[in-house]
Parts: sequence; structure tokens; C-alpha cells
Amino acid sequence: SALTVFNTPVNERTKMATANRNPEIRKDAVNNRLVILSPARSRRPSDFKSKSQAKSDSNPSSNAQPQCPFCAGNEHQCAPEIFRMPADSTSDWKVRVIENLYPALSRDSQVKSDNEEYCHANGTAGEVSLGGFGFHDVIIESPVHSVHLPDLSPSGIAVVLLAYKKRIEQLCAIDSINYVQVFKNHGASAGASMSHSHSQILALPIIPSIASTRLNSMKEHYNQTGKCVICNIHTDKFLIDESTHFVSISPFASTFPFETWIVPRYHSSHYHELDEDKAIDLGGLLKLTLQKLSIQLNDPPYNFMIHTSPLKVAASQFPYTHWYIQIVPQLSTIGGFEMGTGCYINPVFPEDAAKILREVEVS
Amino acid sequence: SALTVFNTPVNERTKMATANRNPEIRKDAVNNRLVILSPARSRRPSDFKSKSQAKSDSNPSSNAQPQCPFCAGNEHQCAPEIFRMPADSTSDWKVRVIENLYPALSRDSQVKSDNEEYCHANGTAGEVSLGGFGFHDVIIESPVHSVHLPDLSPSGIAVVLLAYKKRIEQLCAIDSINYVQVFKNHGASAGASMSHSHSQILALPIIPSIASTRLNSMKEHYNQTGKCVICNIHTDKFLIDESTHFVSISPFASTFPFETWIVPRYHSSHYHELDEDKAIDLGGLLKLTLQKLSIQLNDPPYNFMIHTSPLKVAASQFPYTHWYIQIVPQLSTIGGFEMGTGCYINPVFPEDAAKILREVEVS
Ligand SMILES: Nc1ncnc2c1ncn2[C@@H]1O[C@H](COP(=O)(O)OP(=O)(O)O[C@H]2O[C@H](CO)[C@@H](O)[C@H](O)[C@H]2O)[C@@H](O)[C@H]1O
Ligand SMILES: Nc1ncnc2c1ncn2[C@@H]1O[C@H](COP(=O)(O)OP(=O)(O)O[C@H]2O[C@H](CO)[C@@H](O)[C@H](O)[C@H]2O)[C@@H](O)[C@H]1O
Repeated sequence: SALTVFNTPVNERTKMATANRNPEIRKDAVNNRLVILSPARSRRPSDFKSKSQAKSDSNPSSNAQPQCPFCAGNEHQCAPEIFRMPADSTSDWKVRVIENLYPALSRDSQVKSDNEEYCHANGTAGEVSLGGFGFHDVIIESPVHSVHLPDLSPSGIAVVLLAYKKRIEQLCAIDSINYVQVFKNHGASAGASMSHSHSQILALPIIPSIASTRLNSMKEHYNQTGKCVICNIHTDKFLIDESTHFVSISPFASTFPFETWIVPRYHSSHYHELDEDKAIDLGGLLKLTLQKLSIQLNDPPYNFMIHTSPLKVAASQFPYTHWYIQIVPQLSTIGGFEMGTGCYINPVFPEDAAKILREVEVS
Repeated sequence: SALTVFNTPVNERTKMATANRNPEIRKDAVNNRLVILSPARSRRPSDFKSKSQAKSDSNPSSNAQPQCPFCAGNEHQCAPEIFRMPADSTSDWKVRVIENLYPALSRDSQVKSDNEEYCHANGTAGEVSLGGFGFHDVIIESPVHSVHLPDLSPSGIAVVLLAYKKRIEQLCAIDSINYVQVFKNHGASAGASMSHSHSQILALPIIPSIASTRLNSMKEHYNQTGKCVICNIHTDKFLIDESTHFVSISPFASTFPFETWIVPRYHSSHYHELDEDKAIDLGGLLKLTLQKLSIQLNDPPYNFMIHTSPLKVAASQFPYTHWYIQIVPQLSTIGGFEMGTGCYINPVFPEDAAKILREVEVS
């Protein structure tokens, strides 16, 4: 019998964060999303064998792998390269942006032009389908198999962040692309199929529901208060760290235990407005945040997502749209309640998570 | 390197369902939700060791376990019983409905009455919180540790289904309860912490986002067409099986591979309108569906959710609200794209899944 909220082994301080307290239902004003904060849930037993995530998650060998297509020297095993950083590098590249060999969407312009006839309301059933036009890329974050994102220096991470920016700018120029999702999966329990450090970009012809709900929610807040909800976000007891241009916080209505947001202190609708200076500053804070989560939660699998605004928002929407990064350590498996309702149960109050993460010492 | 869409070992026919085809984006008219159907995704490799889900998911011993609180004889290890079926049974009970010992919400009426002063808009940040009042129950589906839901007869399953109904009717009578989520987690990868066959009911003071989005979506469809979207659902190439009062289908915009819905053929807003006759009929179709998924997908972990209407809908909403059951085999781990966008990538077209499941022979 184990603490089943955390499939990964966690230390005593993490467990203490789930001390006695009454449950609370909170609403995230940014995403208009409810969460149930419920410390009691962390004490439930399990009669399934512990997953020992850590082991199954990490690759048997973390040295250079001849069969890994993302390692330097194996470039020919990959789908076509879009660009590399530095642009004029040869075998000494730092970051490569390539096509995904198994893309979720098709960059075939035939699929795009088919859409006019293809898109149809399916009679009275109201079902709609659309050809799957879009772009699905992989960003290889390092030429070396064993080097993970937080192992890079702040300016090394900035190269990755600026590769996202450059690729988004290219995708922006394609008129039927309306949203871009940058995301990273680290570890098998976070969905990763490849262990070599990488992230992905999916460029979509539609605006997905979480992005449009967020847009509406930000707009409503602005109409009511005259302020951008993100500029106004709580940074008192929810603050973890801050840099010149960014803060890291535990969000007021954290969906997941130890969920962390990195938020620009300057108002900005789109991630790709990031400049080189800010990219290095962000690289430093992202590194620190990932290091702290790794120390506190025993190198957990994690995802991060860049939440930016739809590419073609009108200038009138600039005042209330503000991008940020959401980092989610994957400590547990969700169940039917979350799938059925969209409402998550989180055993750790974010103000407790913030306090713990604030105090983690990174050597 | 393995087929990573399916963490569980799947047979050749299942793999064939992911043959070459262009990706397609579909919208579910019931839930106003987008999915990317993308067969190419199923062929991507993985360099993580296969999880061999099946093993870690099943309990070492499936015989009666002295330490399992849900087994007959261990009733004293459980949180208080609410009722049992049959009501007058002693040690020969078939189903027990008990309080969850580690509840997500508190049934303490103090939390409820605190809500008036507690519920507050948190200044300009627009954050709202509410005391976590609600009910969290467990339905033990069998007194015997090794007997799982589909092992019961149709009328045995009906006893479970009627226990849900009875408990929902009790929760309905509590005026601050507005929504009831019935769900089942089977297997560790579907979130289950207990292996003894059971399901859960959470009664909420709020209407969760998926339920309110569905309500709006059903209303819109009704206003446009004059018809209930569920009464009108496609049952041609998406049909799997049918019974007197129900059909099982693969939904047009399946979020997950082999996702299956069981839909009443009669128009009904609330699950708890189910009578004994229909419960036995539903028991038969649920059994058949779970057996088919188990045969086809090698006893996968799964969740099911009963999607009913908010408890206090007005009579004017009856014409367009219609309950159904969603069954989701858990074959893969989602990643940052799904978390970031709310849009899922499904490698199996539902019409292909329906064809396969239609043809599975249950002996
Ligand atoms: N030689 C090669 N050249 C180019 N690209 C190659 C390649 N070999 C493999 N790839 C691609 O590299 C990517 C690696 O991505 P990740 O490890 O982050 O997770 P993946 O996308 O597999 O799925 C996770 O993320 C997605 C999106 O969130 C979820 O749908 C899914 O369930 C989850 O497992 C894969 O998309 C794969 O197609
Ligand atoms: N002696 C006892 N008496 C009474 N009740 C007892 C008990 N011992 C244990 N319980 C309860 O029995 C329940 C068993 O439930 P499940 O196995 O379906 O998953 P669980 O709720 O743990 O979490 C899964 O489902 C929830 C809801 O979807 C997700 O939040 C979570 O991440 C996922 O792992 C637990 O809720 C537990 O609290």
C-alpha cells in the first residue's frame, strides 16, 4: 500500500503538503476552469503494485545511442530538416527543427485545398469534418542523447526558445494556420515515445477549445475590470521565483499538484514577440524551475505547454491576451471523474506547493 | 521499438485499423469537441521500454484478499455503508454503496453553510473559491474479489445500475447538489487504486464544464434542427450492437481509439429515470460491450462515465437533453498537445473501430 496520489516516490516534505484541511473548489480566472483541492485524497491506499515510474520512464542507457535518430550523426534517419541553429552550423548544430516523421496533420496542400468541398455538415446529425491540414514538427533540443533541457545553460535554453519563435513566425505566414501549440513531453508517463530531449510544435487550421475558452475568459475579465487577467495575477503567496522579465508561480486554481506557470511580467499577446534578451532571461528561469521540480519531486515525468494567443487575433484583442508557459509534473493517473467532468482533483494546495518550491535549494 | 499508440499488446486486426488514410479533424456535435483522426500516428516507434501494462495493472493475486476492505467479511474496514442491495441482505449482499473513506468533497454541512461567507471574488484577480461541499461514494459491485463487472449476469449488472439510480435519487433531494458524476476506473492505468470491482459517485454543488458545454451544445442543435442530437445520432456505419432499449456505437468524433457509447433509444434526460426492465436490458448490452473490448484489446484498463443532465434542469430543457454512457479503453498516455489544447489525437477512425467490434465473437 502506497501513497497513490504520487506514483513517483516523493519525499517527506512533499507528503506534508497534503496535511489536514477542508476541501475547496476554486475557479481559474484565466481558463474558466474548476478544480477540487482535496488534501484528504492523498492518503488513500492502493493495492496495485507501485509503478516505480522512474525506472520505466528512463531509458536503459543514457549514452549516445546508435539507433536514436535525434542524436548527432544520425540526421539521415530523420524526416527532413526545416532549419538548424546556428543556421550555418554543420555537425556542430545546437538545435534542429525537423518534420515529424509520423505527423498528426498533413502538410500536403492537397488536403488543404480539398477542405472546401470536404468540410460538410453531416445532415441533421450536425457532425462536421475537415481535412487534417497542418504542420507537425519536432525540435531536437541538443545533439547529445544524455543532455536534457535543464542541463543546458540559460543561453543554451534560449537557443531552443528562439527556435520555437522562428518556426512560429514561419507558420504564421501560412494563411490557413490559426493556432500553434508548442509542447514538450518528458518521460514515458508524460506521453513521450522518444527519450532524446525534444519538444514539438503543431500548427492547426482551427482554434482549439482550451485556447478559445481562455480568450473568452480573458476578454470577460478585461470587460469587467479594465485589466489584463494575467498582468493582474496573484504573486504574493503564490510566487515561486522571479527574474528580470518573468515570474514563476503556482496558479491559484492549480489543476495538478506542483503545476507551475512562467508568466511574462510585461504585457504580450504572443509568445513569438520574445526577443533574444528576454529569451536568455526566460531560459534561466525555466532552468531553475525544472531543476527545482526535479529535486523536489524526484525527477518526475513532465509536460510543458506554451499558451499563446490565436495567431490572427485582432489588434482590439491585444489589451487582454497574454501568453504564458504551463509546466505540469506527471505524478498521478487521472480517472473517470476527470474524464467525465473536465474538473480535476488536486490534493496539494498551490500556496503550499509555492512555499515548498520557493525554498528548494539548487546547488 | 513498439507500436506506441497502444501501450497494451494488441492483436493484428487492431493494428490493421490504423491503415493508410489522410488525417481528418472532426467535431463531436454532442460535446462540441474536436478530435484529430490520424492513422499515421500509430506507426511511430518508441525507445522507452514497453510498459507491459497488463502485468502492472492486474493484482498479483485475484483470489479473496484478507486485506481488501471491499471483500465480503471485511465490511468493518470500510467507511460507513449508505445502503446495500438487496436491502434486507446480511452477509449475502450483492452490491454495497458506501462512503468514500478519502473523499474529494466533504459531506459536512458546516462546509456547506460556510459557503455563503466563504464564496468570494478575490478582488481584481477575479479568482473565486467555494467550500468543497459534496458527496463521494463508492459502489462495491460484487462481494467477491475476483468477480468483475462483466462477469455478472445482465440482471446482476442491473443490480449495480439500480444502485446508481437509487443513490442519485437520494442525492437529488439535497438542494445544493447540482450534478452527479457516476464513473468507473478499471486497472491502474485507468487511475484505479483498488482492484476489487467498484465504481464511484461524486455529487457536486456546481455543474462541471463538460456537462455545461454539452448542455449548451445540445440546446443549440435543438434550436437549429428541432431535434435531440442524441436521438438523431448516426447508427449506420457507427453501430456496434443493439438491444431492445439501447444501442452501442463508436461516436463520429471518438476522442480515444475504440471509445464506445451506450445510448438509450428512448428519449430521456436523466439516467435515474431508468426502470428495472431497462436496467436488465442495459446490463446485457454493457456486459457484451465490455466483453468485446476485453477480447479485442486484451483486457485493457478502462473507464466508464455516465453523462446525465444537471439535476435541476427546467422542464423546458427536457426535449434536448439525453443521457448516455461513455466507455474509454485506456490504450495510450496523452501528452502536452492534448493537455494544452483539449484536442485529442486518435489514430483509429471510429467507423473502423465499429466494424471490428461489430464482428468480435463472444462465446
Ligand atoms: N526519425 C524520426 N524523424 C522525425 N520524427 C520522428 C522520428 N522518430 C520519431 N519521431 C517523432 O518524434 C516524436 C517524439 O514525440 P514525443 O516523445 O514527445 O511523444 P509522441 O509525439 O510520440 O506522443 C505523445 O504526445 C502526443 C501529443 O501530445 C500524444 O498524442 C501521444 O499520446 C503521446 O504519447 C513523435 O511524435 C514521433 O512521431
Ligand atoms: N476502506 C475504504 N472504505 C471506503 N473507501 C475506500 C476505502 N479504501 C479506499 N477507498 C476509496 O476507494 C476508492 C477506489 O477508487 P478507484 O480505485 O476507482 O480510484 P481512486 O478514486 O483512488 O483514484 C482515481 O480516480 C480519481 C477520480 O477520477 C482520480 O482523481 C485519481 O487520480 C485516480 O487515481 C478510492 O477513491 C479510495 O479513496
